[in-house]
Amino acid sequence: MADPSTCPPLTRASVFQARELIRPHVHLTPVVTSATLTRLASTVGAFKVRGAFHAVERLKGDRAWVEGGGLERGVATHSSGNHAQALALAARESGIPAHIVMPSISAAPKVAATRGYGARVVFSGSTSTEREAAAARVVADTGATLVPPYDHPDIILGQGTLGLEFQEQAKKGLDAIVAPCGGGGMLSGVALSCEGTGIAVFGAEPSFEGADDCRRGLEAGRRVESVSTLTVADGLRTPVGRVPWGVIHDRGLVRRVFSVSEDEIKAALRLVLERMKLVIEPSAAVPLAVVLFNEEFRSMVEREAGEDGWDVGVVFSGGNVALENLAKLFAA
Amino acid sequence: MADPSTCPPLTRASVFQARELIRPHVHLTPVVTSATLTRLASTVGAFKVRGAFHAVERLKGDRAWVEGGGLERGVATHSSGNHAQALALAARESGIPAHIVMPSISAAPKVAATRGYGARVVFSGSTSTEREAAAARVVADTGATLVPPYDHPDIILGQGTLGLEFQEQAKKGLDAIVAPCGGGGMLSGVALSCEGTGIAVFGAEPSFEGADDCRRGLEAGRRVESVSTLTVADGLRTPVGRVPWGVIHDRGLVRRVFSVSEDEIKAALRLVLERMKLVIEPSAAVPLAVVLFNEEFRSMVEREAGEDGWDVGVVFSGGNVALENLAKLFAA
Repeated sequence: MADPSTCPPLTRASVFQARELIRPHVHLTPVVTSATLTRLASTVGAFKVRGAFHAVERLKGDRAWVEGGGLERGVATHSSGNHAQALALAARESGIPAHIVMPSISAAPKVAATRGYGARVVFSGSTSTEREAAAARVVADTGATLVPPYDHPDIILGQGTLGLEFQEQAKKGLDAIVAPCGGGGMLSGVALSCEGTGIAVFGAEPSFEGADDCRRGLEAGRRVESVSTLTVADGLRTPVGRVPWGVIHDRGLVRRVFSVSEDEIKAALRLVLERMKLVIEPSAAVPLAVVLFNEEFRSMVEREAGEDGWDVGVVFSGGNVALENLAKLFAA
Repeated sequence: MADPSTCPPLTRASVFQARELIRPHVHLTPVVTSATLTRLASTVGAFKVRGAFHAVERLKGDRAWVEGGGLERGVATHSSGNHAQALALAARESGIPAHIVMPSISAAPKVAATRGYGARVVFSGSTSTEREAAAARVVADTGATLVPPYDHPDIILGQGTLGLEFQEQAKKGLDAIVAPCGGGGMLSGVALSCEGTGIAVFGAEPSFEGADDCRRGLEAGRRVESVSTLTVADGLRTPVGRVPWGVIHDRGLVRRVFSVSEDEIKAALRLVLERMKLVIEPSAAVPLAVVLFNEEFRSMVEREAGEDGWDVGVVFSGGNVALENLAKLFAA
């Protein structure tokens, strides 16, 4: 390397010269304030917020609800995590109480974040029956209005707005969108947002212990009403709800649902963490896992799109993860 | 929640209406292409690139080097990781060969990334003596020009450009910058970029097993020339080089260096991973750990800045991390 005696003097002016020399090769590094980072963080995990805010705004616009003391009694829900935080946040912004039923096995950061938004957290068992029963008790005790996590038109429509954002920002247009499917609120909302656009909408599910209830239901022509799985994609353990099923199956707005194995989910998660340097939860990696690893999906794209390929939008939703759980996943 | 029979019909038009209702509460979610994500990723880890590109550009501008066959023989270095990738990338962009000596205990993604940029990787022991000897052999065998990881003015000036970017992007102005200190190339470069600006520059080191050699050296008035530490901040295990020391100590351009414990580094790393959802390596969390946890730093700011506080720029550099190593760090 250059003899140091021939180097520019070590001064601030030489640093400016150095910058001119490397400018063609180096992008400006963005300076992020912690506010920006916080927004980035909440953006990553915030799709559920769309459903919760829409539901709360709709309630506030309902005169009978307001006159009946709705604002004072507040809202309640049961959720394994992201909807819990979303409703807590939406309620706080409107200054109304929120009562959130969470399975006692929920990841600690999800519980902490929900409480951080000022909500009261009530623990329950983890099956959907146990959670719904606990939520019903909370509603009976407090008079709060139940805002279900996915099985309601207002939630579906609110979550569907992410599909509009996707379409408007994808400059070249999209051929397809792949969205995760747990209770189906987001998937059916995205499907509605694509109605009549020609964009094909696909669902992505874990296959472990029958978590691919939507895929199986579509095959059998009949909704699977109960699921018991401990897939690593813990945001996708619930069966598809009745209202989303109407959009996905009865109206045929979701073309197909694909499922992936636990190892495929982990491999996609690893890629996002190691290469994209973004922390997401396992559930959020499921659509990417379909795109990367599901042979049926890949051969369908090859068959239909030929050499041009498709422009596929992949929804990443959910950034809540306890490092201890990540550590268990990737222990050597 | 609203009786579903009173909800808008489940159509695309209703999704547009839903968006109007929630617009005040929800930020537009950015759609990121994989190119954007890749750039974000390489940005996070790319500060070392500034030094390497500057060194290569300076060599290419040296007629004697070019006429002596420099372009054909290429460049070589020894590095525990980020400089290795940086030089490999800079060499590839200029179409010249790169030979990189890496400790055989280097994290697998760092080795893979270096090879991914087309460089030849040669393994060595992990002490600085072993690494330098291996690099000297490579240079003797190939005629490549040694580009040291930090102890050279061209590297320091190139890395210093990040300080200029920081100053220009921080709209309100900065009172201080805290940068990590391993070999001292980045810290001394940032210090040069702040010369005469009134911005105070501080170094951040791990304290484990004597890794705080710069702090100890400044206290004793004499550079510590050898360090043997296995701090989790593996990018900061090297002692400060001679040329950086001239800037940091002899010219007094770094006001002070603070050190933090392994637990403090892990706590800062956890915060960034869990709350900011960004994957960084432990070394990159060291300056944040100083700002959050070092009592001397915090009482200094309180004493000097009073109630207003300081606007402190914190350099995050390095996003290369093997998930297996992260898993070990955060195993429950």
